[in-house]
Amino acid sequence: MSEPLFQRVALIGIGLIGSSLAHNIRARKLAGHVAITTRRAATLARAEALGLGDSYHLDASDAVRDADLVILCVPVGSCGAVTKEIAGALRPGAIVSDVGSVKGAIVQQMQPHLPSHVHFVPAHPIAGTEQSGPDAGFLELFDNRWCILTPVEGTDEAAVAKLRAFWEACGSDVEIMTPEHHDLVLAIVSHVPHLIAYNIVGTAADLETVTQSEVVKFSASGFRDFTRIAASDPTMWRDVFLTNRDAVLEMLARFSEDLASLQRAIRWGDGETLFDLFTRTRAIRRGVIEAGQDTAKPDFGRDHSPAPSAPPTQTPED
Amino acid sequence: MSEPLFQRVALIGIGLIGSSLAHNIRARKLAGHVAITTRRAATLARAEALGLGDSYHLDASDAVRDADLVILCVPVGSCGAVTKEIAGALRPGAIVSDVGSVKGAIVQQMQPHLPSHVHFVPAHPIAGTEQSGPDAGFLELFDNRWCILTPVEGTDEAAVAKLRAFWEACGSDVEIMTPEHHDLVLAIVSHVPHLIAYNIVGTAADLETVTQSEVVKFSASGFRDFTRIAASDPTMWRDVFLTNRDAVLEMLARFSEDLASLQRAIRWGDGETLFDLFTRTRAIRRGVIEAGQDTAKPDFGRDHSPAPSAPPTQTPED
Repeated sequence: MSEPLFQRVALIGIGLIGSSLAHNIRARKLAGHVAITTRRAATLARAEALGLGDSYHLDASDAVRDADLVILCVPVGSCGAVTKEIAGALRPGAIVSDVGSVKGAIVQQMQPHLPSHVHFVPAHPIAGTEQSGPDAGFLELFDNRWCILTPVEGTDEAAVAKLRAFWEACGSDVEIMTPEHHDLVLAIVSHVPHLIAYNIVGTAADLETVTQSEVVKFSASGFRDFTRIAASDPTMWRDVFLTNRDAVLEMLARFSEDLASLQRAIRWGDGETLFDLFTRTRAIRRGVIEAGQDTAKPDFGRDHSPAPSAPPTQTPED
Repeated sequence: MSEPLFQRVALIGIGLIGSSLAHNIRARKLAGHVAITTRRAATLARAEALGLGDSYHLDASDAVRDADLVILCVPVGSCGAVTKEIAGALRPGAIVSDVGSVKGAIVQQMQPHLPSHVHFVPAHPIAGTEQSGPDAGFLELFDNRWCILTPVEGTDEAAVAKLRAFWEACGSDVEIMTPEHHDLVLAIVSHVPHLIAYNIVGTAADLETVTQSEVVKFSASGFRDFTRIAASDPTMWRDVFLTNRDAVLEMLARFSEDLASLQRAIRWGDGETLFDLFTRTRAIRRGVIEAGQDTAKPDFGRDHSPAPSAPPTQTPED
């Protein structure tokens, strides 16, 4: 039997991403020991009940002691404080990483606290669902999904290669780019789409001319797709917008400019402008499917007869 | 064996909705005869090869002659011209309906051409996928979905009841409202969501700082949901925006106003405003699922390992 990649992995935070990592590390034997830590005792107890790790710690320093890989799986806004807390317990040579959706701010917040004897390799797995908490994780989450690593200049190459091997073992394809470029890419493919989904759901809820029950009832005409995205974790997403401010505002300005031009086309009955855009966007969908980033099945392969009284989707957030 | 609801149903246009209706009428024996007509000979031949009807006509007047139910399944912008064309061939007592996503304009465009001896009952099934053409239809499309009827004042109640029975037999729940209210509801639950999905996909395609291949590659982070909606039929959607102009512009103004306020919250680091909205929107998602309008499965129950080289989603449009 071959040696696992790491002796001891510490997972700080055990929500959707943390618990999915735990499933992967155990199933694929990527570490000799998985230490789990999270702030709330109830969440930690739930992780233990689910058997996600080998040891469970309320004190993050206990979890990271002797770990050769430490992954912060907490909202971006908490990464600085957590790093400060664990810095003194980090073992020389350990790889310290994260899973945050923003990378420039992560580097700014974590780097100053880290001792020079560890290797800092920020990471972002492009994978998720609208659910959160330790029950939400599953083994296949990272399959065929991209994981972006954003090591700062001068990072030890062997550490980067080892973290790459870890994510590849979890099923991901790995790409390396600068934190700044990552934040621009994610602003357009993720942050602004989430913002406009949250926004349209809010706009709909506030109308006086159309009732909320009508909005819910007739949501199958497009709106329901947006409600799924707008059910994503509020803390995580607040932090994303606060920490990737510049890139989000830049992309948002372009979005609004383009929307104003569509609005004008509608007002003036300019069908050609509308038709041209609507034709051009079909090609992008084709690209997404050909790249294996979505299913080709109509309507996401969605079940066309959902049970009328299914349980709510949310689980408590760590 | 009980009599079918109708003797002869004429379907004008055989795209996603028309072909799904054909499947329903045949499987549930809702008519003695299904006459299919469409402009393009190739599409008509395809419908015949799929065995969707009992007779096939390039001339719409031939199809509607002797029909006691005529349903226009063509883009909203074509309904006026088609009605003018068939008006002289309509049988006294026939019910004339449509499936358009806009209802005020449908009444304005169809009503003036219709003889007084037919019953005009506009309809809108709230169901669809991003695919189009005669191959796209399937039996279950209308299951548990709403169909809205918008009869104008003074319409024969027996005709409305008969069309309601038809849609219920296709699996739909039926609701009746005015054309004006329908257009407001759909503007917010469908038309504006489609517009902003088309818009964000267009914005992403036009960036210089992020390449199109990066947009496609990392689309699983939110963007891909928008690409599905933005792959919807261009002709149908152009017509929707041109014909539901006032309601769309009103809802769009509210959307933009709300978005400007989120933009301001991001610029000024107002996390509370963001968090409050993101929490409020979760409740709407819960409502959608509890109302049976979407699956409770995470990520729409999407297959998490799509085949890397699936075929493109589009089929030619009628």
